[in-house]
Amino acid sequence: MKTLKIPEATIIRLSVYSRYLAQVDRRGVTTISSGEIADGVGVSPAQVRKDLAYFGEFGTRGVGYNVKDLYWHIIKILGLNTTWSVVIIGAGNLGTALSMYGGFRERGFKVVGIFDNAPHKIGYRLNGVEVYPMERLKEIIEREKAQIAIIAVPAEYAQDVADQLAETSIQGILNFAPRVLNVPEHIELRNVDLSVNLELLTFNLAFRRSIKAGR
Amino acid sequence: MKTLKIPEATIIRLSVYSRYLAQVDRRGVTTISSGEIADGVGVSPAQVRKDLAYFGEFGTRGVGYNVKDLYWHIIKILGLNTTWSVVIIGAGNLGTALSMYGGFRERGFKVVGIFDNAPHKIGYRLNGVEVYPMERLKEIIEREKAQIAIIAVPAEYAQDVADQLAETSIQGILNFAPRVLNVPEHIELRNVDLSVNLELLTFNLAFRRSIKAGR
Repeated sequence: MKTLKIPEATIIRLSVYSRYLAQVDRRGVTTISSGEIADGVGVSPAQVRKDLAYFGEFGTRGVGYNVKDLYWHIIKILGLNTTWSVVIIGAGNLGTALSMYGGFRERGFKVVGIFDNAPHKIGYRLNGVEVYPMERLKEIIEREKAQIAIIAVPAEYAQDVADQLAETSIQGILNFAPRVLNVPEHIELRNVDLSVNLELLTFNLAFRRSIKAGR
Repeated sequence: MKTLKIPEATIIRLSVYSRYLAQVDRRGVTTISSGEIADGVGVSPAQVRKDLAYFGEFGTRGVGYNVKDLYWHIIKILGLNTTWSVVIIGAGNLGTALSMYGGFRERGFKVVGIFDNAPHKIGYRLNGVEVYPMERLKEIIEREKAQIAIIAVPAEYAQDVADQLAETSIQGILNFAPRVLNVPEHIELRNVDLSVNLELLTFNLAFRRSIKAGR
């Protein structure tokens, strides 16, 4: 698969910058320096400039960035200047939690269907979104023009779900199941490992302890 | 707060390397080169060497790394050579999903209690873990010597929960609520924004489209 030379950490920071810019825009601020963005989100000004430089020239030296312009530029880079239709596979606790996650809607993601194979769940609505049987996966994805699928099924079923998605027009998969999946080249796959977040925490806690212990 | 100069992306990759090393160790492999680790996880060999170099010298030039030694060294760097006791605040869908998340146990995290303020949930067990009322937060955290708390409540209650946690012996907070939280200096806070994962996907999908469109 073709990959970009832009570090993933840069994309994550762009996402953070865009949220911060939305926030200062709501306060009526029109111009902002890299130093102010840096202060607002807790990185260095050089990092902000470096991240933005990947995508061309934005600011005016000595003046800074136009808040709205920069916001929309980043939103476009992130591919968020359009609404993405998302289906969720798995109407268990995780799938249900994801279907209600406010953060998705805020950023232009629209959940258009949830799929499960438990007969008693079919036909119900979760947060206004209908639960469909797995047999209707391809039909609903195509009817709703869904581009992204979120896999929220137990690990042992994840590859089977991925195989079924590969037969649809889905372009990207976000996989929450702790299992390595194989998908065809034309599908963009991203795995979410929730433990990594805890490990970033324990790394810092262990480091603090070693400092305290004087090592 | 004291912070390390080690990039977060490096810590995330160390976590990935350690999972890969555990996998090759199970296959009986005893020695591995940076090139083989790189191939296995999909980064460059130079990146593997650079990431490991932050923590001193490991391998032997021309021989490579001892798989078990390197695995345990990384586990120790990540602070995972000990079991961490975790409490979850919020027994809704997300809290319930997290209490059942197999990935946590695999990496040495033990959920010792779940807290909620809905009377009908109290006393139940989720995946073997008792649901306690919020009033018992401090008592249970201290009894179970929990070091980490996961906030999985609706955004509007998250700061109140963080304030209550600040009065306990909790050392780290993993916050899933889409809200910026204030915590005292002595608590390590990490926010999980689930939308960022979708945005890393849309960034790549938007990039593919622009390639197709010949721009």
